[in-house]
Amino acid sequence: MTVTITAVDVHDVRFPTAAAGDGSDAINRGDYSATYVELRTDAPDGTFGAGFTFTNGRGNEITCAAARALAHHLLGKTLAEISAEPVAFWRSLTADVQLRWLGPEKGVIHMATGALVNAVWDLRAKVEDRPLWRLLAELPTDELVRSVDFHHITDAITPDEAAAILDKGLVGYEERLATLEREGFPSYTTSVGWLGYPDDKVRALTREAYAQGWRAMKMKVGGPIDDDVRRARIIREEIGPDALLMMDANQVWDVDEAIANMGRLAEVDPYWIEEPTHADDVLGHARIARAVSPIRVATGEVAANRVIFKQLLQAEAIGVMQIDACRVGGVNEVLSELLMAAKFGVPVCPHAGGVGLCEYVQHLAIFDYLRVGASLDGRMVEYVDHLHEHFVDPVRTREGRYLLPEQPGYSATMKPESIAAYSFPDGPVWR
Amino acid sequence: MTVTITAVDVHDVRFPTAAAGDGSDAINRGDYSATYVELRTDAPDGTFGAGFTFTNGRGNEITCAAARALAHHLLGKTLAEISAEPVAFWRSLTADVQLRWLGPEKGVIHMATGALVNAVWDLRAKVEDRPLWRLLAELPTDELVRSVDFHHITDAITPDEAAAILDKGLVGYEERLATLEREGFPSYTTSVGWLGYPDDKVRALTREAYAQGWRAMKMKVGGPIDDDVRRARIIREEIGPDALLMMDANQVWDVDEAIANMGRLAEVDPYWIEEPTHADDVLGHARIARAVSPIRVATGEVAANRVIFKQLLQAEAIGVMQIDACRVGGVNEVLSELLMAAKFGVPVCPHAGGVGLCEYVQHLAIFDYLRVGASLDGRMVEYVDHLHEHFVDPVRTREGRYLLPEQPGYSATMKPESIAAYSFPDGPVWR
Repeated sequence: MTVTITAVDVHDVRFPTAAAGDGSDAINRGDYSATYVELRTDAPDGTFGAGFTFTNGRGNEITCAAARALAHHLLGKTLAEISAEPVAFWRSLTADVQLRWLGPEKGVIHMATGALVNAVWDLRAKVEDRPLWRLLAELPTDELVRSVDFHHITDAITPDEAAAILDKGLVGYEERLATLEREGFPSYTTSVGWLGYPDDKVRALTREAYAQGWRAMKMKVGGPIDDDVRRARIIREEIGPDALLMMDANQVWDVDEAIANMGRLAEVDPYWIEEPTHADDVLGHARIARAVSPIRVATGEVAANRVIFKQLLQAEAIGVMQIDACRVGGVNEVLSELLMAAKFGVPVCPHAGGVGLCEYVQHLAIFDYLRVGASLDGRMVEYVDHLHEHFVDPVRTREGRYLLPEQPGYSATMKPESIAAYSFPDGPVWR
Repeated sequence: MTVTITAVDVHDVRFPTAAAGDGSDAINRGDYSATYVELRTDAPDGTFGAGFTFTNGRGNEITCAAARALAHHLLGKTLAEISAEPVAFWRSLTADVQLRWLGPEKGVIHMATGALVNAVWDLRAKVEDRPLWRLLAELPTDELVRSVDFHHITDAITPDEAAAILDKGLVGYEERLATLEREGFPSYTTSVGWLGYPDDKVRALTREAYAQGWRAMKMKVGGPIDDDVRRARIIREEIGPDALLMMDANQVWDVDEAIANMGRLAEVDPYWIEEPTHADDVLGHARIARAVSPIRVATGEVAANRVIFKQLLQAEAIGVMQIDACRVGGVNEVLSELLMAAKFGVPVCPHAGGVGLCEYVQHLAIFDYLRVGASLDGRMVEYVDHLHEHFVDPVRTREGRYLLPEQPGYSATMKPESIAAYSFPDGPVWR
């Protein structure tokens, strides 16, 4: 914990995925990219912290610029200092008297904060020689509570309420850990139904995924509604009545349009509708949730911060909360979101995919189960089988379940050869 | 209208205001800055479009990077093309399939959109040889409606409802124009009560402003509550019982804290409390509004987009709507906000100050009065007497009122010598 951060390296890493149609939905067609940071330290063994935020290709240089603008808040700091005053450190990034204007706490500047904050947690987990999920799950309640910035959410959860949830999470801890060690963490797959795929590819991928053991699958909707219905029927035919079929509209609908279209799609018994409308529209999500029940409304992958999540919960707008590991300000802010979800009794199903998001969120879901939500009921981590090969400690799955990460850190470290090959614009892939 | 945009110049311009304590409040201490863009054209007379987004100093290079990332959507376009399909043009910026992920429609990427979109409107107003307020006010209803992206706000306002408002705005138009030509547009001053100022400076500035004719003044709150109360009493003593005293907490309070503190500050009869809590907290603003009535809740200077404004109106969270000219995606998005405010019957009092914001928003307030809100009841434009000297067509005021801009354009053009002197990091001021 005496290691000092001596430099912050920022890399613009981009994978040319757009051409293949992977990851294309109603509004995104991306080259999956990472604003990837490594925190160099004075540790004699060269230990460094790795973190990133995920972007969609063009504009990754903007989040890189933001990470560089924030980096001075880390330089010269020791892990011990940061861990002693975690909220003070977090606010040095999120409440910088000049940079805050660029958010506040949203978009580019907040995503860069997420990359840096996550890198600090990766560094700490490596220094303490355990995977991040274990580091978090074994922290005393008071240290976890001290890591959360309750500013602007005290009307939804207080430090005392958070402590009570975390203390309760100590009961049955060993049993839950044994369950995960034995069975892994439930997940679902999004690789079957991208909008860029033709019907026969959707059918073939669905059949293949089902054969591999997946019993929960997500398709993209938000194209012409007749096409959405046709593709949904194909998937439902393939998976039978019992497997879960989730739908994701990626915000393309207006509120009334979402309600009408889900009326059409209800025939295939969707489990949830994700991002039915604009991500900022708390009241709209609440109206949709009331209208489409018992289909659950899910959202969160572009929810800007804990204040948006707070309102989604207060307004009973979501039946599934989809946290993202690096859209918000990193582990510290995710803690606040997990705690609010537990208080409001809403299951957390993290957003993943892109590049490295599966690697990140498995730790958060596992921690949530061990210490916060303390249940697997309705919990699943998204899984997409893309780009894991670029990570030093990639996710491992078995029959549709994530296996517990074992290496120290937050599984965020990219292979040096991948960084070199995919660096933009000078790596060989892009030259 | 046949002019073609041939180049987009982006300048990082910063004014060293932080040291003077100007512009310091509960959470900002800024070097007022502009991500300033000029759209070069093939017009033989060298006509160009100017626009900017305002930032707070550090990080202005990030919004500059965002403006450069979006610029390709403008290159080679003619004004005629853009004006023929205004929403298609606007969405080329806001719904770029890769850049949208960085918002969506919020923060850095949306502020850069605002700079570019405003520059297009400045160019058009210059080409049509009239100030922007007049260009807008004289547009046919159907062209104004066609300039608005109703995506995600149709549950609050439809194109037909917008058309009805704008048609109604034609009635009494000449009379309202004559009123403005005679009297100017009402405003209020924020220069008296920055948190960085000592009590005697607050008293002296208040006295001076009152003598100059100001009858509405705004102070910053959000420091220790006893200090806020003491400073509020000083201002109220100086301005007497009839002048308006507004307060601005710049988001520093939690919801319950805001309600408690306004209970203390009610003794000086505040007209509004601005940004009582986090800018994203629609539900929180609604709770505060119910609790502090008849004190009005005002917000908007960092409201990310039309979807946030929509909800503030739907939830009856605001009694005053403070639009910003360049936080959102420029004139097109502001149109949607003005129309929603009119439909919900909430007066618009634009945010200004910083650098160039007064120059921008006077046009919007005048247009709102002429064609949309069509009333001066409760309408005031913020006024801060900083940095106007850097603009080619600076605001002009008389006895606390803005005079009508007369030069063609959006008053956004900076003097070349100011751009050169204050360019960061190479201008002489910063070297």
